[in-house]
Amino acid sequence: MSDTVVVGLDVGGTSTRATALTLDGRRLGDGRAGGGNPTSHGAERAAGELLAALREALTGVDPAWVRAGTIGLAGAPRLLADPAGRDAFDRAWRDAGLRCPYTVHGDALVAYASGTASPEGTVLIAGTGAVAAGVRELRLDRVADGHGWLLGDAGSGFWLGREAVRRLLADLDRDHTPGPLATRVLTELLGSSEVAARPRDTVDALVQAVTRRPPVELARLAPLVVAAAVGGEPVARGLIAEAAAHLAESTARIRPAGDASPIVLGGGLLTGDTPLAAAVRAEVARRWPDAPLHSAGDGAAAAAWIAARELPEVADPRALHTLLVPPPP
Amino acid sequence: MSDTVVVGLDVGGTSTRATALTLDGRRLGDGRAGGGNPTSHGAERAAGELLAALREALTGVDPAWVRAGTIGLAGAPRLLADPAGRDAFDRAWRDAGLRCPYTVHGDALVAYASGTASPEGTVLIAGTGAVAAGVRELRLDRVADGHGWLLGDAGSGFWLGREAVRRLLADLDRDHTPGPLATRVLTELLGSSEVAARPRDTVDALVQAVTRRPPVELARLAPLVVAAAVGGEPVARGLIAEAAAHLAESTARIRPAGDASPIVLGGGLLTGDTPLAAAVRAEVARRWPDAPLHSAGDGAAAAAWIAARELPEVADPRALHTLLVPPPP
Repeated sequence: MSDTVVVGLDVGGTSTRATALTLDGRRLGDGRAGGGNPTSHGAERAAGELLAALREALTGVDPAWVRAGTIGLAGAPRLLADPAGRDAFDRAWRDAGLRCPYTVHGDALVAYASGTASPEGTVLIAGTGAVAAGVRELRLDRVADGHGWLLGDAGSGFWLGREAVRRLLADLDRDHTPGPLATRVLTELLGSSEVAARPRDTVDALVQAVTRRPPVELARLAPLVVAAAVGGEPVARGLIAEAAAHLAESTARIRPAGDASPIVLGGGLLTGDTPLAAAVRAEVARRWPDAPLHSAGDGAAAAAWIAARELPEVADPRALHTLLVPPPP
Repeated sequence: MSDTVVVGLDVGGTSTRATALTLDGRRLGDGRAGGGNPTSHGAERAAGELLAALREALTGVDPAWVRAGTIGLAGAPRLLADPAGRDAFDRAWRDAGLRCPYTVHGDALVAYASGTASPEGTVLIAGTGAVAAGVRELRLDRVADGHGWLLGDAGSGFWLGREAVRRLLADLDRDHTPGPLATRVLTELLGSSEVAARPRDTVDALVQAVTRRPPVELARLAPLVVAAAVGGEPVARGLIAEAAAHLAESTARIRPAGDASPIVLGGGLLTGDTPLAAAVRAEVARRWPDAPLHSAGDGAAAAAWIAARELPEVADPRALHTLLVPPPP
């Protein structure tokens, strides 16, 4: 039985998760706190959430046993470049009683490592945004898309939501009765599925309803597209297919044809049994037939594994992965 | 020789133009002032520009001779629905010494009437934004697109600019050397055509350069695409072809196949001898081979014509159009 403890954190926009694991795979504690992305929330608040999640995970654990830690977060290079942000994270780490060093990695690397122990491969993530990244020697290498909603994020939740509204607007321009997906979008945005006697009035109301809110909130319409696609709605199925093609195209920008290294699918739209995950799996299998395909799983545990594999007593990082990182459900 | 004077105004986002014409086609005066769109500039300021343009056009003209007037402006329905906006315009009209009534029409109708005297047809406009509209009995009927940069304006200047940046970002993701158009876009946005040793740094700098400014300013890159297309650059030519297809598709939403009524092309990207105008002409001729095609011309004169055709002494509005509205250069 190992007394060595490693700590991993997965810091996302809406939640921060922490886990404390022994090297033989016992889970000593888990912690959860609010969104801790320093880019969107400010370094101080992000560090506060980090501390809360750490303290919860370390309840009843002597911090002196913790020998290594890793924090995975979006915008990691920006945090590392910002002394104030780095200071705030250092302080949270010390305030949790930790004296060991920690490393910071991009959330994409942590998502990748939650799906495979292979040091070389590709990760494709689609949630609100969308990004593909190559991994070499367990570091992020080349990146495709992740350009944000205005210029990219093709195939993301934002993209699905925006396209769903665009199809609805095109229906109204054509004076067509909105189909099932369009009707759901109309109801979500205007509170009623009724089209005005002059359809242009409904068009104007829709444009205003969308532009009153931050553009990225179009992503909240993505679940409507997913649900409609599950029900077989043809417009929704078409959008899912287009999104999958975009995601595969972004991946192909950084991954050679015939590459047989693993591909990990992450983000809310690609983990679990979603129609977009199924469509992306099919696209990916077509382009890279020899690549093992994995789903991203427990990011905090993967971060802990990344921390642990640098310890001198770890001889077989791959075996350790099996112990520390549970396979996705 | 007619003593009856009509006044027309074309109120755009960057300039306001006014013209005073007699019914036999003598041009008594022209006026020009700053942008007067009440939606973007506020009703008071818009009314101020309107008054300045009117006063200049009416220099040396007895306002009592003016029997009718028309104001063409974007967002006309919103102005008419807003009592404060309508009041500000009424005041400017009176302050210019005018006692006759005036009508307000959308800028799309005025653009249409600047190209043809036919009371039925279609107008397609591409500038910063893009919109297609049907015209019936010289009123705007159904409208397609014009949904704004976030949800539509497919094939517009904004669209061309955004797509040019997206192609550049895709080149960098792929680790390709940017082509001629991409190089021009890179230089315009970052002041240098150099790509960083780690191309992702250039990607990040580009995304930041674009997102620091209002999204609609991507339209200022459209002239780079047009210039590159004139020079035969293949990416630019491809974007122009795609934009033309989008514009034709928007038009087809509101215009039946085989319709032989005239089509007027307006907006900075479709008037004059531009590659997009040529591509749209080809697309339109393919879809509506029997439709006469016209360019939008002098909007202020067209507005004056719209005002004049309601006067009892005007027996032949079509003949009057020939007198009042000069053909586009």
